[in-house]
Amino acid sequence: MSWSEALLNPRRIALIGASSDAKRLTARAQIYLRRHGFDGDLFPVNPRADTVLGEPAFPSLEAVPGGPVDLAYILVGTQHVESSVEACAAAGARSACILADGFAEAGPAGRALQDRVVAAARAGGLRLLGPNSMGVINVPSRTACSVNAALAAEKLLPGRWSLVSQSGSVMGTLVSRAEARGLGFAKLIGTGNEADLTAGELAAALVDDPETDAILLFLETIRDPERLEEAARRAHAAGKPVIAYKLGRSEMGAQLAATHTGALAGADAAVDAFLRAAGIIRVDMLETLLELPPLLLGRRPPEAPKRAVEVVTTTGGGGAMVVDRLGLAGIAAHMKDVTLAGASRASMGAAIAEARSAPDADLAIAVVGSSAQFQPHEAVAGVTTSTGALPVCAFLVPQADVSLRLMAEAGIAAFRTPEACADAVRAYLDWRAPRAVPDAPHDPALAALIEAALDEPGARAVFAALGVPNSAMAVDPDDPPPLTYPVALKAVSAEIAHKTESGAVALNVADAAALRAAATDMRVRLGGQITGFIAQPMAKGLSEAILGYRRDPVVGPMVALGAGGVLAEITRDVVLRVAPVSEAEAREMIEEVRAFAAIRGYRNLPRGDLSALASAVAAVSRLVAYREVSEAEINPLIVLLEGQGVVMADALIARAERHA
Amino acid sequence: MSWSEALLNPRRIALIGASSDAKRLTARAQIYLRRHGFDGDLFPVNPRADTVLGEPAFPSLEAVPGGPVDLAYILVGTQHVESSVEACAAAGARSACILADGFAEAGPAGRALQDRVVAAARAGGLRLLGPNSMGVINVPSRTACSVNAALAAEKLLPGRWSLVSQSGSVMGTLVSRAEARGLGFAKLIGTGNEADLTAGELAAALVDDPETDAILLFLETIRDPERLEEAARRAHAAGKPVIAYKLGRSEMGAQLAATHTGALAGADAAVDAFLRAAGIIRVDMLETLLELPPLLLGRRPPEAPKRAVEVVTTTGGGGAMVVDRLGLAGIAAHMKDVTLAGASRASMGAAIAEARSAPDADLAIAVVGSSAQFQPHEAVAGVTTSTGALPVCAFLVPQADVSLRLMAEAGIAAFRTPEACADAVRAYLDWRAPRAVPDAPHDPALAALIEAALDEPGARAVFAALGVPNSAMAVDPDDPPPLTYPVALKAVSAEIAHKTESGAVALNVADAAALRAAATDMRVRLGGQITGFIAQPMAKGLSEAILGYRRDPVVGPMVALGAGGVLAEITRDVVLRVAPVSEAEAREMIEEVRAFAAIRGYRNLPRGDLSALASAVAAVSRLVAYREVSEAEINPLIVLLEGQGVVMADALIARAERHA
Repeated sequence: MSWSEALLNPRRIALIGASSDAKRLTARAQIYLRRHGFDGDLFPVNPRADTVLGEPAFPSLEAVPGGPVDLAYILVGTQHVESSVEACAAAGARSACILADGFAEAGPAGRALQDRVVAAARAGGLRLLGPNSMGVINVPSRTACSVNAALAAEKLLPGRWSLVSQSGSVMGTLVSRAEARGLGFAKLIGTGNEADLTAGELAAALVDDPETDAILLFLETIRDPERLEEAARRAHAAGKPVIAYKLGRSEMGAQLAATHTGALAGADAAVDAFLRAAGIIRVDMLETLLELPPLLLGRRPPEAPKRAVEVVTTTGGGGAMVVDRLGLAGIAAHMKDVTLAGASRASMGAAIAEARSAPDADLAIAVVGSSAQFQPHEAVAGVTTSTGALPVCAFLVPQADVSLRLMAEAGIAAFRTPEACADAVRAYLDWRAPRAVPDAPHDPALAALIEAALDEPGARAVFAALGVPNSAMAVDPDDPPPLTYPVALKAVSAEIAHKTESGAVALNVADAAALRAAATDMRVRLGGQITGFIAQPMAKGLSEAILGYRRDPVVGPMVALGAGGVLAEITRDVVLRVAPVSEAEAREMIEEVRAFAAIRGYRNLPRGDLSALASAVAAVSRLVAYREVSEAEINPLIVLLEGQGVVMADALIARAERHA
Repeated sequence: MSWSEALLNPRRIALIGASSDAKRLTARAQIYLRRHGFDGDLFPVNPRADTVLGEPAFPSLEAVPGGPVDLAYILVGTQHVESSVEACAAAGARSACILADGFAEAGPAGRALQDRVVAAARAGGLRLLGPNSMGVINVPSRTACSVNAALAAEKLLPGRWSLVSQSGSVMGTLVSRAEARGLGFAKLIGTGNEADLTAGELAAALVDDPETDAILLFLETIRDPERLEEAARRAHAAGKPVIAYKLGRSEMGAQLAATHTGALAGADAAVDAFLRAAGIIRVDMLETLLELPPLLLGRRPPEAPKRAVEVVTTTGGGGAMVVDRLGLAGIAAHMKDVTLAGASRASMGAAIAEARSAPDADLAIAVVGSSAQFQPHEAVAGVTTSTGALPVCAFLVPQADVSLRLMAEAGIAAFRTPEACADAVRAYLDWRAPRAVPDAPHDPALAALIEAALDEPGARAVFAALGVPNSAMAVDPDDPPPLTYPVALKAVSAEIAHKTESGAVALNVADAAALRAAATDMRVRLGGQITGFIAQPMAKGLSEAILGYRRDPVVGPMVALGAGGVLAEITRDVVLRVAPVSEAEAREMIEEVRAFAAIRGYRNLPRGDLSALASAVAAVSRLVAYREVSEAEINPLIVLLEGQGVVMADALIARAERHA
């Protein structure tokens, strides 16, 4: 039996530290397992009781008859968890789940304890869920192995999608909110600290679960981006959409690196780029997570979406609320008000069928007014019986619980608020297949350049080898080579961080004599810090870009493109993508930097060399092949007129060992 | 009896065109009035029936005994409305409400019909609600004079706030959604086309209504900004908050004028500025409109809000969702997780009391997890019995209908979603008292200048008279006065729209000879269009602004301030306020233009002359005293170093008659 089968569909469960006091948290798992009809073998383990809540108890896991258990739910206090895990491993338990908190989230001592617990599990071949886990619920199998208070509900609705939640309490929240809509789940997994099993690995297990058609993620962080990405790719291949609600949107600036790229791009933008690259659909609102799946089931990401929808409404005001909200997301809507035709099944059905055949739209939205409240069967039938090539979903304008349930039964996504409806439609239209990752080969010669890239000429050499043109050359100011004047002269130094402020840069140097004078001036001022000079013809650009590369601490390698200058810095006009990117993806990035509208052909303004810029973005993103590079930046990268290329004005490579 | 008493609390109601077919829309008003217990006099008027739905019917309004009715609900078809209104006026009805549509919203013929209907009403001293009105509901008086299907509900909950809705169907939506939360209404008014009575006038009536403590507005447009503003000011004085949900946020660019100001500032920004200036609280999400009032009742707009909240939560994940969302709105949150202390009344109450006494916060939010679902009385008591100087509201994380009702009964604002909770807190912190309107005196001499302001020198003279320094002077290029060279030379013409493109501008003119040459060149190129020349010393500014004034077609006079340049135009970096503004308000506008961060003291960059800029904004806004000015613009207005002032580089005044 695999760990995932043992964990997600256990037939033999031990409750380590089960309490006989029904009021205690540690009694709940047994109560809930029984309440919801678990029909496998259940073994309360409690050395101080012969029976627990009326069932025979066992003094230890060793005393449990019939061989190893599939799942041990460890309910003991933090200080007893390590020995319990050791006992589980010794007894051959196939999986274990730890309820207690007080581990990595509680500081260094908790972190050390957590590490020991994981080591003990691994030594015994035992996979762990938690610590700080609300457990596992398998609804179709009636296995509610959890202490989540939501299980106090009389019954659990089974459904065709599964939830992986890093928050245990939110797991219960979603169960209660889904139930109110007539929506249910297949599996629910509270991952807690993810000391061993992570959201990614659990999502992968759900890809293989025949009872799961869609995977929902409630994420506070991402601990295993590679595994999560792999799970998302496999889910896509299996036709199972993966939908995430991820906290941390406003924690911008928290884990920022020293370079401008870092300062400009918050971690959430990196998470967003990561999710999108993996083909994971991100919703903005909590309830969208629950309400969206029926719109996606059995569908693939829309190809070349038109970002246009057909709205059929029985209420002008209700339809207008959705249309208005869609407009804020840049989605066009064409609205047909069928109020006069009546909200009957026939008239609504005909109008929706027409909307679902519209050639210029991506999907149809049925907006149902008071009939959803008072004639739910009639109101819903017009939507559920409609046909057409395009998907359909519904916004129910009044409080309409019965209609919500009927829609759920019919497999139609139905929304309670205009905001969630628009968020879902936006999420659907933003849904992309996991991207094809372009090649980023490792070249030993380039690795050697990186090893030597301690100063600006070194960094320029690396970027040049990647494919970004370099117009600077080393010069001896006392005997300069032939140059195309005017030039910029720069002192080379690994020690001077802010060259312009330090006076290590001279611009518009007119001739050889001026070059010599400027260099002399720098030598007088900066002395021994200078290790050489470079000169570069002055470039008159249309625009300045900041092009950066860094390993995001959460989701890994990213390439960042932003507009240069103070204004862009203030307005955070930066776009991130997972590195490496193709030139086509780089062109998409250029389209998304707002300030570059000025060089994309705005009004009659001259166009910049966007091909050269895209090429440079793709080139820099190939740094992903060199793990030793922690950050790199060209700032500014000057964009010349169309056909004339781009010019590096400054360049920097930072290696990971410097930060160690 | 006043029209408002007659309309909002009628004791004698005639239903003109009441149907005896219970399935028809026109039968509903009678059915609903009876269902909800109307105990005044009800007169179905139907010439083809002796009884309607079991009640005696009358062939005409004249046949109704006992004198004039308070309210006639006109249910007849569009083509019979005019004669019905005439009959109502003749019979002395005190108010009337028209159900039919097909009036102004249906085109010119409908518009003409609507005008005739209003004229007929006015001739008879009759006030009209509608056409296209869903009627009036007075819940405490059990007067459900409406055909809204939401009234099919068994009962209506009375409450202490009233709704004015331009959408009839949304009126029903809000009734049903409020009921599900245990929230009720005092009055509900569907205004429809507002041919006579407008939302503003009805809001004013509600200010005088002793049963109304807060006024809710569902707006599709604003037809009477002056009346609405006046109502909002009176509501503020009476301590009644006014809360609006206004559609049209994404209809930017719909009614734009020709100048850059118009092109940059969408109509919704003007509506937003208008509502804020009037002290009306705008919510972003539909359900916030319902859920927010208890947070505002009995309170005044927060003075100098800290934009910081204390969050007390029994669920880490649930609290984090609200905190994350607040962060997106720029609101800081300090979170205390009381999970370990238990969600008991005592522990929660103590933590909330502490939060409500926090010195650095504006309000406290209680985030209640599963206990809200399963122990509602216990969960709610901790919040409802807490004390403290700061307001408190609650976000209920699971589906928790009973807790929502208990919170409603206790008068605590409770939210169903983290998004609505954050939207409400944001709306509360953005709540301002109606602003004090600065003086903008009318000066006949300035009016004469405006009359003559057909070209740039004329416009400059107007702006100079308002208080914006003008450094340009008229010159005879063949005999120039002493000038501070280099100067900009411009040909004066009322005909040339785009001077730079037409070659009517010469920059950096070095001396008198160059001036003469440049003028000769312009004369050759532009000939008879030129009516003179102006010259102005070249100014080296830190930044460029666009400063505009216009009468928004919906909400009236606005002053707009934006950053100059292509980039700001692309990013719509413009701020609007209702004109006139004080210099203090102008400083707030400067703070809100993102690009001006660069001249507000960002890093070590030099500061611009923000005092002079604020003074210019206030000066231009005083154009409000001159109704003949439809639009005015200084573009660009060059901002010099701190202490050095601002310079008009171009100026334009457009008068209303030009557009007539």
